[in-house]
Amino acid sequence: MSFMSEGEISTEAGADANKAAVPARRTPQPTYEGDFVLDEHLLLDCGRTLAGPTLHYAVYGRLNAARDNAVLVCHALSGSAQVGAWWPELLSPGGLLNPEIDCVVCVNLLGSCYGSTGPGSVDRETGEVYGPDFPLISIGDNVRAQGRLLDSLGITRLRLVLGGSIGGMQALDWTMIHPQRVEQAAIIAVAPLSAMGLALNHLQRKAIQDDPDWAGGHYLPHRPPDRGLALARQIAMLSYKSASLFEERFGRNPNRNGEDPWGFDNQKEGGGLIGGRFDIAGYLDHQGHRFIDRFDANAYLAILRTMETWDPLHGHRSPTEAFSGIRARLSFIGISSDWLFPPEAVRHFAYTIRAAGVHAHYLEMTTDHGHDAFLAEQVELVKLLQ
Amino acid sequence: MSFMSEGEISTEAGADANKAAVPARRTPQPTYEGDFVLDEHLLLDCGRTLAGPTLHYAVYGRLNAARDNAVLVCHALSGSAQVGAWWPELLSPGGLLNPEIDCVVCVNLLGSCYGSTGPGSVDRETGEVYGPDFPLISIGDNVRAQGRLLDSLGITRLRLVLGGSIGGMQALDWTMIHPQRVEQAAIIAVAPLSAMGLALNHLQRKAIQDDPDWAGGHYLPHRPPDRGLALARQIAMLSYKSASLFEERFGRNPNRNGEDPWGFDNQKEGGGLIGGRFDIAGYLDHQGHRFIDRFDANAYLAILRTMETWDPLHGHRSPTEAFSGIRARLSFIGISSDWLFPPEAVRHFAYTIRAAGVHAHYLEMTTDHGHDAFLAEQVELVKLLQ
Repeated sequence: MSFMSEGEISTEAGADANKAAVPARRTPQPTYEGDFVLDEHLLLDCGRTLAGPTLHYAVYGRLNAARDNAVLVCHALSGSAQVGAWWPELLSPGGLLNPEIDCVVCVNLLGSCYGSTGPGSVDRETGEVYGPDFPLISIGDNVRAQGRLLDSLGITRLRLVLGGSIGGMQALDWTMIHPQRVEQAAIIAVAPLSAMGLALNHLQRKAIQDDPDWAGGHYLPHRPPDRGLALARQIAMLSYKSASLFEERFGRNPNRNGEDPWGFDNQKEGGGLIGGRFDIAGYLDHQGHRFIDRFDANAYLAILRTMETWDPLHGHRSPTEAFSGIRARLSFIGISSDWLFPPEAVRHFAYTIRAAGVHAHYLEMTTDHGHDAFLAEQVELVKLLQ
Repeated sequence: MSFMSEGEISTEAGADANKAAVPARRTPQPTYEGDFVLDEHLLLDCGRTLAGPTLHYAVYGRLNAARDNAVLVCHALSGSAQVGAWWPELLSPGGLLNPEIDCVVCVNLLGSCYGSTGPGSVDRETGEVYGPDFPLISIGDNVRAQGRLLDSLGITRLRLVLGGSIGGMQALDWTMIHPQRVEQAAIIAVAPLSAMGLALNHLQRKAIQDDPDWAGGHYLPHRPPDRGLALARQIAMLSYKSASLFEERFGRNPNRNGEDPWGFDNQKEGGGLIGGRFDIAGYLDHQGHRFIDRFDANAYLAILRTMETWDPLHGHRSPTEAFSGIRARLSFIGISSDWLFPPEAVRHFAYTIRAAGVHAHYLEMTTDHGHDAFLAEQVELVKLLQ
């Protein structure tokens, strides 16, 4: 299982030839990894409650005596608490964070399938698995629950909270919900999801719902809606990468396993209508295939909702009302080739918040990697953040 | 049934309020509409044959005595021979073409479900429906068959051949395959499909294949793979429109029928994981729903292959070898907000052909409508072409 990137550029026929030349780097290991169980009901923004939910989390490093070295890293859609596995460069020598000095905490999102309470968990009230009855969890719900976890760890202040994509949503909400607890926040490749982003989410959801094995969310553990989840992941992958990266890596090449897009494939049902794949298709199929091994369809649906309902202006009369309580210094990072959260949208969002009197500035990563650059181009991200 | 645009901006809850203010325009009607049956086997680029295929076509106007007033219009993926229905402004007073003067011909693509031989037709050799055994039809195959049809109509020369998207592919192939027969060609919003375009096609194909009702292409007439075809259409729709148009028309608004994206939908299975739709989602669902009423899944798959295997450079050693035989004057039109066939790609393609010694120039439509602008913004297109 690898979280190096939302979609490494490789196909089943062979990974990037350059990889062999890069010496294997040790994945930073957590000092501690475990569960925190809230001893009460978590009242959610949607009006429902989660009874004693679990937060799975990992800690890299130790809280110092002054308790002023805590950093919270927030993960994206399909990430986990193991930030060392998916953001290794940030925790490695020369990176942004140093577990010898910093106390880095990362908490798995509610709704996920990596240890925190999600659709696959048992509802403590009913004794049954939540399944499709799992409630809408907001970014704010996550942040409030994370606040309780940090209380339990003795962490009253964060010198930095950071994350990309949904991780950035959490980082900003931290500065709004706990203004006294955050000194600095780095909010990467995110703004409230645009209509195009909402459209992409909707079609991913449909792909899962249309899989007959989804069974209205009551699918059997040995028969999950794999085809729908794979297709959802592949749709998402288009938005994580850029057209120019695809063009450079795959172009119009036939699939590297030797399939012929101009040929008739007698091996396949519908061979005349389907034909051999292009290389980009082989790549996408590989990504879909990898994803179903590591993620759960209902968890995916849950986090899509968390992502798309996030809008810090929702319910506020003005940006000033929404943002003027923020005390932290904010850095927004846009990615030049990101079309899921376009850099203009991130910059506009940053300037809206700055106009509310907040200390906020905007930086941009110039890269062909698209939205995924915050995972795929870690060295460049570290340079920018330093 | 409407072909006005690949995806009119309206939802089930009500069409654009401005529409009422626009006087209803009469749809130009064909002078003649009928079938032409080739009296021999059509040898295809893929090496297979079609036995006596039918071409369904429509004619607007009459061939004059000098036989110098013929224009061929080529349609896009889901279009039909009835160009008056999907490009009415081009055939209306003040438009580019005048059926009082011009003899406008439009031929339904092979593989389609609007009258020409396609996967739903009976193979004259076997007496059985082609279904998924329908062969790969190239753009060139279409052009050669269209040439035979025009022969039968006494049309030896075309003063103009034009089309957008797959229609533009046919227009260019006409100038390459029948260089002596074409004076001028307008090639709109097209270039060989990029890696991103191939990716979008692949996911549309997967959506159909993953529908259990597809049954390997042997689906029952009363049980077609509607969910898969609808999802395919919705994925395509993202690439036909632009992010800025979606943002302007839908933004982050809840669906206009009153659904609540922040709410829990007790009416739906998986209500907690699914929730109410945003407006863009309602629009996309409406588009998918409309499409399954008018199109066939296997025909869709057939034309996706026709589209993605088109590359006039494929099999040639150089652009000069591929293009220097062209005698027609070519106009390429890019659309500023098109991300399926980005304007830079269309321009680059035009200049590659010009560098091969062809009379070719490039124009650009400035619009927010995305790829679909050649159907959605007809008045602007006419101005540019005139």
